[in-house]
Amino acid sequence: MSESEQTLPLFFKRVLLTVDADDTDSTKHAFRFAVTYAKDNGISLGIVSVMEMEDINIYDSLSPDRLQKKREAVEEVVKHYANLAKQYGVKSVKSLIGEGGDVDDVVLDQIIPEFHPDLVVCGADMVDARHKSGKTIGLHLAKRASTSVIVVR
Amino acid sequence: MSESEQTLPLFFKRVLLTVDADDTDSTKHAFRFAVTYAKDNGISLGIVSVMEMEDINIYDSLSPDRLQKKREAVEEVVKHYANLAKQYGVKSVKSLIGEGGDVDDVVLDQIIPEFHPDLVVCGADMVDARHKSGKTIGLHLAKRASTSVIVVR
Repeated sequence: MSESEQTLPLFFKRVLLTVDADDTDSTKHAFRFAVTYAKDNGISLGIVSVMEMEDINIYDSLSPDRLQKKREAVEEVVKHYANLAKQYGVKSVKSLIGEGGDVDDVVLDQIIPEFHPDLVVCGADMVDARHKSGKTIGLHLAKRASTSVIVVR
Repeated sequence: MSESEQTLPLFFKRVLLTVDADDTDSTKHAFRFAVTYAKDNGISLGIVSVMEMEDINIYDSLSPDRLQKKREAVEEVVKHYANLAKQYGVKSVKSLIGEGGDVDDVVLDQIIPEFHPDLVVCGADMVDARHKSGKTIGLHLAKRASTSVIVVR
């Protein structure tokens, strides 16, 4: 890379925001950063939430009704943030729902290959809160993703 | 936080870029993101490199001459990036040099309290490359810092 290439501007073109139902301050900050960046740069914003099957007990998992309710709750969260993003002025907003055993794996193996972001945005609570598996979500994304990752506090 | 507060724009106001002498692609991408963001938003950019005393053998550490040479090499790296940032059009650029046993600790305990960034930018190589101590630098920053952290690939 030459000196002139080193100082070429670098914008992210597709930003993926991970949100969850726990409406924490860091999720809100992550949302605010993502919509600000997406609007200012006229880029696409994907908003994803993952329904973690691990969190669902065996009784619920056997009941299609209860499973459907949980699915709808996750969809509701994404829809809420997607609407706010559109109201804020982000032109291209895509809602994404993941489902699986582990947020990291679902985002890495299903959502990123589907949406092709070059930046993943997550709130710090995803980092601070430890998973059942003992993994910290945002950090594992930052380590394993092929994209850039921002952890917002 | 009300709905209207949720969609307030969120800009970072002081960005700290960590660089090192290993002039990797991810450091260059991190630099390009940092200068783009700092220029576009008219904010302050700090550029830091840390002289790791762990990397210095006992012979060198006892020689003021050799120590001075290593210090100058680290200063040179920061100066190089600071000059490029100014050329690119970032108005407020501050060069920072850290010195200590561990990059993470130095950034967290010395540099962040001095510069007060609200975003720390580091290249993914700081994450991928394992430290002698077995820690990954960027990830520990992301976990321990009180600021937001972006790992750029």
